[in-house]
Amino acid sequence: MRVLAALGGNALLRRGETADIATQRANAERAAAVLAEIAATHELIVTHGNGPQVGLLALQAEADPALPAWPMDVLDAETEGMIGHLLELALRSRLPECEIATLLTQIEVDPDDPAFGAPTKPIGPTYDEAQARALARERGWKLAPDRDGLRRVVASPEPGRILALPSITRLVEASTMVICAGGGGIPVVRRADGGLDGVEAVVDKDLTAAELARQLDADALLLLTDVPAVFADWPEAARPIRRDRVARLRTAGFAAGSMGPKVEAACRFVQATGALAAIGALEDAAAVLAGREGTRVDP
Amino acid sequence: MRVLAALGGNALLRRGETADIATQRANAERAAAVLAEIAATHELIVTHGNGPQVGLLALQAEADPALPAWPMDVLDAETEGMIGHLLELALRSRLPECEIATLLTQIEVDPDDPAFGAPTKPIGPTYDEAQARALARERGWKLAPDRDGLRRVVASPEPGRILALPSITRLVEASTMVICAGGGGIPVVRRADGGLDGVEAVVDKDLTAAELARQLDADALLLLTDVPAVFADWPEAARPIRRDRVARLRTAGFAAGSMGPKVEAACRFVQATGALAAIGALEDAAAVLAGREGTRVDP
Repeated sequence: MRVLAALGGNALLRRGETADIATQRANAERAAAVLAEIAATHELIVTHGNGPQVGLLALQAEADPALPAWPMDVLDAETEGMIGHLLELALRSRLPECEIATLLTQIEVDPDDPAFGAPTKPIGPTYDEAQARALARERGWKLAPDRDGLRRVVASPEPGRILALPSITRLVEASTMVICAGGGGIPVVRRADGGLDGVEAVVDKDLTAAELARQLDADALLLLTDVPAVFADWPEAARPIRRDRVARLRTAGFAAGSMGPKVEAACRFVQATGALAAIGALEDAAAVLAGREGTRVDP
Repeated sequence: MRVLAALGGNALLRRGETADIATQRANAERAAAVLAEIAATHELIVTHGNGPQVGLLALQAEADPALPAWPMDVLDAETEGMIGHLLELALRSRLPECEIATLLTQIEVDPDDPAFGAPTKPIGPTYDEAQARALARERGWKLAPDRDGLRRVVASPEPGRILALPSITRLVEASTMVICAGGGGIPVVRRADGGLDGVEAVVDKDLTAAELARQLDADALLLLTDVPAVFADWPEAARPIRRDRVARLRTAGFAAGSMGPKVEAACRFVQATGALAAIGALEDAAAVLAGREGTRVDP
């Protein structure tokens, strides 16, 4: 089977963990161990989130106001480099015979996507009211309430054309394990003159993974995160959903910031292809693929 | 012809320029215009330096001592993402019909390379004596005099195996323009147990470019920088060398930090392959390839 495994942004940096590089290397090794199990019997494509790493880069870039700040497309590109490297290193260590390649992945988004009028995706640190007002004025940022402060929010437009798709396809078909589409891809827009520009946005990494899986004719899409399944009636009477149909899952109203995009991504892939989509814990990846753990989405 | 063009680290950020992203985007477009001329009639592989960008990232990462510092392999990976993205974007804008792919490129170095005992490659900002002593004590850094202060120096070992070579080759043979081996590649070492670790080093980007050009059976290696040629008798009675033989160039004693590695890289490639190697200005790339500008190295 051709399997696309999408690792959550917390796969390399879990909530509450120190952000040092030793932790991220150890987590990459943990992920590689799990992915190697699948790669032993299947073709594997790996995508990943970048939320915690983009947040850190934004903090680093802000620590000295004299240093230039990078826009989102550049921060995304940096995290594709960093996380791709750590994953590739861990996977090469575990699978010395396997050909592995990490590809930068630009993704076209529609400059008229309504998401640009209503940014929702929080990025970077939490600010107080005064800081937030200053940043909105100086940098033109949108800020929105988040826990006990305000955070920058950027648009999260729909994934469009994956520009490196021909190269990704060629390598996958040559039995190379490809790591790509990190952080949902590096968002770009096409100008009226046909050229491309980077854009301040974040494409949802699970929606990009679903689109890539569809384009690659994958037999399975695994959305791997830090919880063992999709839960119904969260949190009051939480119970894991073992399997359910697209039509029912779509109306269940999962949280926009966490399970919502995963469920939507799985539904899109299943609806478009009739193939297998499942959501579960990274540690359980092989069991999620086999249907023994996680939540499976039926057409 | 199959041409490998190695862009100097100053291609995206020239000496004295503001390090903002608009400048780097404009420079990427300038580089793309020149590379497009060559790509019109030749197969092209693009590599690039990362000196100014790694320096900036190191500065950003240091601005807040509470934030974790990244090791060199991770900084290199980040710059492969960032610079690769800017170059790919500019090249895609100029060559909409061309397949382009940017590959992360890990490069194996020998943990027993004598370079690890004598670090020479300066990285990041200049410190005064007291700062330098503190950094040497706290982080185990080596520091060496540079202009009017001290800078961190890291080892610059010989390039070994380019781990993504099979994928690079596959894409090049499918007429894809590949951007890779940024910053000389991400240096890794093999542990006794066969696994791979990142390492605090910088592989010279021109030596890596020469090795890659050799492995790809390139017909030409262009080392493109911000001066129009290699100069003899620099700076007193400077005169450009139009062409010269490996044996004479190798004994001429060019500066270790600038022209030295370029001349050595060109000599190695010519000696190993008998193919064309030339050094010149980025703006003149097509003329350097045609032998009308720059310095050509003869066997």
